[in-house]
Amino acid sequence: MPTAVDWVGQTDRDFENALTLPGRVYWDPAVFAREEQQIFGKDWLCVGHVSRLASPGDFFLVNLGRESVILAADKQGTPHAFYNVCRHRGTRVVNDASGSCRLFRCPYHDWAYGLDGRLMSAPNMEETPNFRREDFPLREVRLELWNGFLFINLDPDALPMSAVYDDFPDLSYLNLHRLQRVGYHHYDVDANWKLICENYNECYHCALAHPQLHRISVDREYPDLNHVGKHFTGGPMAIRQGFNTMTTSGVTDRAPLPGWKDSDKDMVMYFNLYPNLLLSIAPDYLLTHYIWPTGPETVYIETEWFCATEQIEQPGFDPRDAIEFWDTTNRQDWGLCENALRGLRSTGHRPGPYQSWETCVHDFDRWYVRRVFACQD
Amino acid sequence: MPTAVDWVGQTDRDFENALTLPGRVYWDPAVFAREEQQIFGKDWLCVGHVSRLASPGDFFLVNLGRESVILAADKQGTPHAFYNVCRHRGTRVVNDASGSCRLFRCPYHDWAYGLDGRLMSAPNMEETPNFRREDFPLREVRLELWNGFLFINLDPDALPMSAVYDDFPDLSYLNLHRLQRVGYHHYDVDANWKLICENYNECYHCALAHPQLHRISVDREYPDLNHVGKHFTGGPMAIRQGFNTMTTSGVTDRAPLPGWKDSDKDMVMYFNLYPNLLLSIAPDYLLTHYIWPTGPETVYIETEWFCATEQIEQPGFDPRDAIEFWDTTNRQDWGLCENALRGLRSTGHRPGPYQSWETCVHDFDRWYVRRVFACQD
Amino acid sequence: MPTAVDWVGQTDRDFENALTLPGRVYWDPAVFAREEQQIFGKDWLCVGHVSRLASPGDFFLVNLGRESVILAADKQGTPHAFYNVCRHRGTRVVNDASGSCRLFRCPYHDWAYGLDGRLMSAPNMEETPNFRREDFPLREVRLELWNGFLFINLDPDALPMSAVYDDFPDLSYLNLHRLQRVGYHHYDVDANWKLICENYNECYHCALAHPQLHRISVDREYPDLNHVGKHFTGGPMAIRQGFNTMTTSGVTDRAPLPGWKDSDKDMVMYFNLYPNLLLSIAPDYLLTHYIWPTGPETVYIETEWFCATEQIEQPGFDPRDAIEFWDTTNRQDWGLCENALRGLRSTGHRPGPYQSWETCVHDFDRWYVRRVFACQD
Repeated sequence: MPTAVDWVGQTDRDFENALTLPGRVYWDPAVFAREEQQIFGKDWLCVGHVSRLASPGDFFLVNLGRESVILAADKQGTPHAFYNVCRHRGTRVVNDASGSCRLFRCPYHDWAYGLDGRLMSAPNMEETPNFRREDFPLREVRLELWNGFLFINLDPDALPMSAVYDDFPDLSYLNLHRLQRVGYHHYDVDANWKLICENYNECYHCALAHPQLHRISVDREYPDLNHVGKHFTGGPMAIRQGFNTMTTSGVTDRAPLPGWKDSDKDMVMYFNLYPNLLLSIAPDYLLTHYIWPTGPETVYIETEWFCATEQIEQPGFDPRDAIEFWDTTNRQDWGLCENALRGLRSTGHRPGPYQSWETCVHDFDRWYVRRVFACQD
Repeated sequence: MPTAVDWVGQTDRDFENALTLPGRVYWDPAVFAREEQQIFGKDWLCVGHVSRLASPGDFFLVNLGRESVILAADKQGTPHAFYNVCRHRGTRVVNDASGSCRLFRCPYHDWAYGLDGRLMSAPNMEETPNFRREDFPLREVRLELWNGFLFINLDPDALPMSAVYDDFPDLSYLNLHRLQRVGYHHYDVDANWKLICENYNECYHCALAHPQLHRISVDREYPDLNHVGKHFTGGPMAIRQGFNTMTTSGVTDRAPLPGWKDSDKDMVMYFNLYPNLLLSIAPDYLLTHYIWPTGPETVYIETEWFCATEQIEQPGFDPRDAIEFWDTTNRQDWGLCENALRGLRSTGHRPGPYQSWETCVHDFDRWYVRRVFACQD
Repeated sequence: MPTAVDWVGQTDRDFENALTLPGRVYWDPAVFAREEQQIFGKDWLCVGHVSRLASPGDFFLVNLGRESVILAADKQGTPHAFYNVCRHRGTRVVNDASGSCRLFRCPYHDWAYGLDGRLMSAPNMEETPNFRREDFPLREVRLELWNGFLFINLDPDALPMSAVYDDFPDLSYLNLHRLQRVGYHHYDVDANWKLICENYNECYHCALAHPQLHRISVDREYPDLNHVGKHFTGGPMAIRQGFNTMTTSGVTDRAPLPGWKDSDKDMVMYFNLYPNLLLSIAPDYLLTHYIWPTGPETVYIETEWFCATEQIEQPGFDPRDAIEFWDTTNRQDWGLCENALRGLRSTGHRPGPYQSWETCVHDFDRWYVRRVFACQD
């Protein structure tokens, strides 16, 4: 474990004199182990949109490192999250990535759990004195709904989302919980997860790396710095004149999302909810990225595109212009992040200066250092 | 290294109140390193049937983690075990998995060793003053014969097998050393080796997981608990009425193994000799499993089927009904063990209760804890 | 980390009583980490022939574990070595393995560096107060030219090559810097890098392992032991009567290298410059091996063949007889080295005696022990 004190200071300076993080935080397994504990073991993690649990019995799995978590809607439609671990011998109970069912039945010894986690049957356990089924439900993971998204937290003592994100701008007027998924991609990237966040947090690289994006949107930092919050960064970014959305053509005749403010018609909104959600809201669709580190130098990224029912029901509705645009942009970014990691592995790396459009990167880095190193234990 | 004291206690309670092992013993590399030292470095390990060294010059290799051990019959037919390491520069001397030869010749500098390990020639070493060939034989590994099986032990100070297994039931009436191998399979399984043992040690899972086995044999624990010994578990299990062996059909017209007791005609005997041998004796054949951990989360398993010469010489002898039956059963079990490991990796795992048919699992777990953690050094 | 004191002693004894290195130095990751620091982080490493930087703008990359180093000729043709790490966010700047260019342009944010490493442009950094381009050149790695070869050193405090190799025989009469590359091969070998050096440092194995070489050259140790130096081993070795070079046929009508001494016409010269260069000079060509460990148990090896312009311009010039001869010999050696590592992994390995032709192996081993273990820190 590096002694963090020296460089906590240099990252934490005022922006103009601050320096980027030291290279080893991007690849050192000991640092990653600490991140797993201090960040992914304690922070709220977005696992997807509530529409994935639309009906009673709907379930899906989320893999977080060595963890597997079951997300399920019970008979009343109430969502739950459970460790995917049988209470008998520790076997993974559910193996399908998603589906619909009435019971979760362990394939080893046939212990069966209800959608609410209760142990419903355990063959022959009546022979074991003192055994009570009610003592062995699937173990719950904390779950909250936030703007239509499901968030889990492995820490029973974590603050509720309402406290962690109390400074987040109000998005309720967009009714994001009503959207429907219209696209999905996933990526395996050979980069540290923080490089993905840092990449998202600045558009200084857009002119060179994303010509297709650069021609449509202004590649400055997010102008509204009030939106740099306790546990997120982000805010609006301008769409250039002659365009009205972020797609291959930059022009759409899809109606805006219901509730979209006319004053925002040339805006796209980007948010990084630390640590694992990137929320990108164009006038006519929503894009999400879920960031799942699989090791210090590898990360699994899922992306989803959402539209409103009203849009989807229009004749000729076709979201491919948004999907392909971001798939192209994503792949450009992942290549840059992989290249960054290669450089950061060198003993010749030294922290460098932030460019003036990189205030959100600086904010992420400062949050990171405080969260991982500036704490007791 | 986990502090073992807390959970040694919980595993070691009386059966009805005992709890299963903590998850980390199934994947923690530090625990595995300790197992390599305390178990695989100190216990007797079965490497196969004596028939593999039937003639002078016969040899075969056994791989145990980073070790390679040569098993060889010398000119008198006496079996030996040697570290497969040249005494000159440490090169692996033998590279063929098995064969027959008169000398083991190192491919690097042509040092040649006899079948009894003696250094027979070392080109030009006469130029080195004080060099004496008799000082550099292949280094012996301890070897014992037990019921027709070869066992090695890397610990020069280990107790002899006669002391370790003095409470094992007498199988001498079966003359297992006279059997011949009629089948072989090997498997790479993504599971901790202990999960393989635990799986073998109970049939609570049989009804759900092994329908083809469940219809033939009774899926309770082994009824004769006197056979839970110091360094093994096992005993007889009943074959259901209408069947007379463990095969695809459950019925055979093969004669029983020579010496098989008529009183055992509806019995199959299962033994787990800790740590690496599973010995399964059906009325008409013998099945062995050799368990070779290759890491905390991977294991290499070899299986062999044996019959007596008298059986093999019968017209139409065909052991495939036994081989296919167990290959099917094995693959079902390996899948369960892999699934168990996936669950045990979770921080959400908590030790659970044993079911009443799992006394042999409990016995294995208690042996394991004592062997690995309740010891000096 | 093993406590080295015990076995430093046994390797460091006088040759006749010395014993080879303990097995763990060939596979222990902790030992390898120390080698990376004490040897590959402090010694001069050959990266290739100066002809690779023949013209201004020529560049190539060298990978050393997690390091990437740019070798480049600036506008004046002066060679430089730089860490391949952007001074802004640490990205790998150059990704082509070799080429020719005028600027090194980071693909992330378009920072551009001159061939001499100076930061020439950094878009929009003028907005950052106090930022001065001259403070952020590519970081230089020490570079020296030696007998026509480029050597780098990651240690700013390393002694110059002239001091490290002041006891190396004078090769200036051969004008090695004028040679041209006529062949190239690379190999991934599953062996520790030291096994490659030890293998090169003796021909005791040649009779058995290299029949095609053994028929041409005398397989004794190098006769001229004066050539065992502070930081290298090597010297001449005799070509047998009836042959005049080391090729498939053993006979060539290529003229000797310009400057080759007539008294050496039956000689081939072999040098191991510690740690990573093998320099093999036959009468009519030069062969080099560059040894790049990629882990404790893996090594990447590059080989190059060189001839003089005068030879190359002869009608019918064809170096394949030299290239194929060594490709065959190399592959035989890599197999032996991989086999040696397999044996050395065993706990049954014990250090052995050196054979009388292995004085250069002993010298390498003693150098190694002093360099890695007999030092402060």
